[in-house]
Amino acid sequence: MHFDLLHTDEKSNARAGELHTDHGVIETPIFMPVGTAGSVKGVHQHELKDSVEAQIILGNTYHLFLRPGLEVIEPAGGLHKFMNWDLPILTDSGGYQVYSLSGARKITEEGVRFQSHVDGSYHFFTPERAIDIQRSIGADIIMAFDECTPYPCDYEYAKSSMHMTHRWLKRCFNQFEKNGPKYGFEQALFPIVQGSVYKDLRTESAETIASHDAIGNAIGGLSVGEPDDELYAMTDHVCGILPKEKPRYLMGVGTPVNILECIAMGIDMFDCVMPSRNARHGMLFTSEGIINIKNKKWEKDFSPIDPNGTSYVDTAYSKAYLRHLVRAKENLAIQIATIHNLSFYLWLVKEARKHILAGDFATWKDQMVPKLSNRL
Amino acid sequence: MHFDLLHTDEKSNARAGELHTDHGVIETPIFMPVGTAGSVKGVHQHELKDSVEAQIILGNTYHLFLRPGLEVIEPAGGLHKFMNWDLPILTDSGGYQVYSLSGARKITEEGVRFQSHVDGSYHFFTPERAIDIQRSIGADIIMAFDECTPYPCDYEYAKSSMHMTHRWLKRCFNQFEKNGPKYGFEQALFPIVQGSVYKDLRTESAETIASHDAIGNAIGGLSVGEPDDELYAMTDHVCGILPKEKPRYLMGVGTPVNILECIAMGIDMFDCVMPSRNARHGMLFTSEGIINIKNKKWEKDFSPIDPNGTSYVDTAYSKAYLRHLVRAKENLAIQIATIHNLSFYLWLVKEARKHILAGDFATWKDQMVPKLSNRL
Repeated sequence: MHFDLLHTDEKSNARAGELHTDHGVIETPIFMPVGTAGSVKGVHQHELKDSVEAQIILGNTYHLFLRPGLEVIEPAGGLHKFMNWDLPILTDSGGYQVYSLSGARKITEEGVRFQSHVDGSYHFFTPERAIDIQRSIGADIIMAFDECTPYPCDYEYAKSSMHMTHRWLKRCFNQFEKNGPKYGFEQALFPIVQGSVYKDLRTESAETIASHDAIGNAIGGLSVGEPDDELYAMTDHVCGILPKEKPRYLMGVGTPVNILECIAMGIDMFDCVMPSRNARHGMLFTSEGIINIKNKKWEKDFSPIDPNGTSYVDTAYSKAYLRHLVRAKENLAIQIATIHNLSFYLWLVKEARKHILAGDFATWKDQMVPKLSNRL
Repeated sequence: MHFDLLHTDEKSNARAGELHTDHGVIETPIFMPVGTAGSVKGVHQHELKDSVEAQIILGNTYHLFLRPGLEVIEPAGGLHKFMNWDLPILTDSGGYQVYSLSGARKITEEGVRFQSHVDGSYHFFTPERAIDIQRSIGADIIMAFDECTPYPCDYEYAKSSMHMTHRWLKRCFNQFEKNGPKYGFEQALFPIVQGSVYKDLRTESAETIASHDAIGNAIGGLSVGEPDDELYAMTDHVCGILPKEKPRYLMGVGTPVNILECIAMGIDMFDCVMPSRNARHGMLFTSEGIINIKNKKWEKDFSPIDPNGTSYVDTAYSKAYLRHLVRAKENLAIQIATIHNLSFYLWLVKEARKHILAGDFATWKDQMVPKLSNRL
C-alpha cells in the first residue's frame, strides 16, 4: 500500500492524492460511508458502487466482533467476501464503541473489559486483541487501539490517557508485525493522534505518531462535542506536524462545511455517520443547503429531490414523495435519503479534488461554504 | 382495456392470457406485489421492474387516502406520477382495511364510518366515494366497495352482507359511469364475488357479479383464515360460474401452493402481502422449499441465498450474510429478502404460464407442489 501525493493547493494546504491498496486505488480527498455491521444501512453494495460512487467503506470492529463474530467472518474468508464488497475497507479498532455503546466497562493498562450491548456478555479488548480481530475481519486499513477521550476532558486525564494510547500503540505495532496479513492482501495499520483540545498534548501525540512512520496517520478524539473552532484549531495544528507524504485521516468528521474546511488544512480521508444517520431522520444535504424533508413546505413540491444531485434517486423521486415516505415510516425513505446524502458527500469530496487539481480550490470552497449550511 | 385468453390447459382449468391496459400488457397468470402506501416496502421502483419483474402492483386506497391523501396525489397527477411507476396499478376499495385496521367503525346501508389508525380522525366511505377516491388515486384497475366478511361468519350474516355488497355494486357502477377517467387513461372497475364459504351464496354472488359484464371479475372474502380446503372449494366453484373470457382475480391469496392450485382452477390474478411481509421476518420462499433464514443452520452457510433464483440478490449475497443482517435488524435484510420473495413469486407465475402454453402445466404443478411447502 502506498500514497501518491499528486498536488497541494497553493492558497491552502488542501491536497489531492491516490492511496493504492490491493483492492484498488482511492482518490483523495475521500469520504468513507459507514457500514457499521457489514452493511451501509439501506444501501445495496452495488448501489454503493454505482449510485453513491464510494471508493472505500468503513466497518465497526466492535459491532462485527459481537455479531456475526469472527466465527462467521473468518470462515467466510473475511468481510470483503462475507458482504460481497471488493473495494477497500477500513475498520476502526472498536475502542470508540466500547466507550460509547457497551454496558459496564473498565479501562486498565492491559486493556478494556466491557459488556456487549447485544447480549450482555463480557469481553476483553487489548491492543493485541484489537489488531488480531481486525486482521481477521480483514480490512485493508486497520486502526490502532486507543482511548478516545470525551469532550470536555480535563488536562490531566487527557495527558495520561494519551500516554497510555502511545504505550498501546507500541503494543499494536508489535502485534501487527508478529502476525501478518490474514487473507493474502496487504493490511496497513494507521496510528491515531489523541490529546483532546490541548495544543501541547496534540503536538506531543502527533510527533509520537509520526515517529512510527506508518503508511497513513489518523487524528482521533475530535468531533466528540467540541465547538468547530476547537476542531479546526486542533486539525490545523496536527496537520502541520504529521508528514506531508502520508495520508491523513480525520476520524468521525463531519458536516459538509467541516469537511471542506478540513480538506483545506490537509486532511485526505473522512468518515462520519452524519449523512447516513441524518438521512434516516429526513435531513438531506445538497449543494444549495440543508433540507428537512418532513417540513410541510415540501408536501406538494413535486420537483426532484435534488436537481443537481449525481445519483439517480435525485431525479427519480420528488420531494413530496420522499416526504410522504418519511412520514409513513416506509423503508424506501431510508433507502432514498441515504443514497442521496452519501452520493452528495462523495460528490463534495470529488468536486474538492477536481478544484485542488485545477488550482482554484480556495475560491471554490469560499463560494460553497455559505451555501452548504443554508436551510432550504 | 381488454383481455385476450390465449390458451386453456387440457388437464386443468389453468389459463394463459394477456390483459391489455393503457400502461402496458400484463401476462397472466400474474402476481401483483403489494405497495400499500405508494411503495413496495424495501424495494425501489426500478428494482420492481428490473429485479422482481413485476408487471402490475397494488396500492391500498385506505392507506393512500389517509396519507398522503388526495390533496397530494391529485396535484401530483395521480399515483403513477407521484411514485414514478409507469406500469399498471390496481387499487383495492379500502373496505378491507377499514374493517381490519381502523379504530371505531360503523357499517350502514349508506356506507362505513371509520376512524383513521394514523391520527384518529373520522371518515365516511360510501360506494360512490370509494369509486371517486380510486379514480383520483388513478389506478388502471379499481375495485368495487364491498364488505369482506370474516371467517368464520354465520350464514345469515354472510347472506345479508352479500346482498348489501350487491346493492353497493350497483351504486359503484353508477358512480363509475357518472365520472370518467381522471388522468386520460382507461380505468376499469372489477366487481367482487362474496358469500363467505357457503356454496349457494357464492353461486348467487358469482351470477350477480357476472351479470355486470365487467372487464374483469374478482373473488373476495377468501384467505381470511379459512382452511385451504374451503379456499379451494369456493374458488373452484366460483371459477365455474364467472365468464371464461374475462380475467379472474383472487384477492389476498396466498402461499406458493395456493397460487398454483388456484391457477389450476382458472384464476388469472393474485395479490398477497405474504411474500413481502414474511420476507421482513426472514422467511424465504424458494423452488426447493421454505427457508427460515434466522435458523442457526444457516449461520456459516456461505452458499448463495437461492442458486436457482432469478434475481441478482439470490447470488450476490449468501445465506449466512442475510441471516446476519436479519439478526442485526439491518435495513438491507428487508431489501434483500423482499426482492428475493417477490421475484420468486413472479418467477412462479411466469413458470406456470410457460407450462400452460407448453401444455404440461398439470404435470409440472404436481411436481412443484410438494417441493414448495418443504421446510429447508
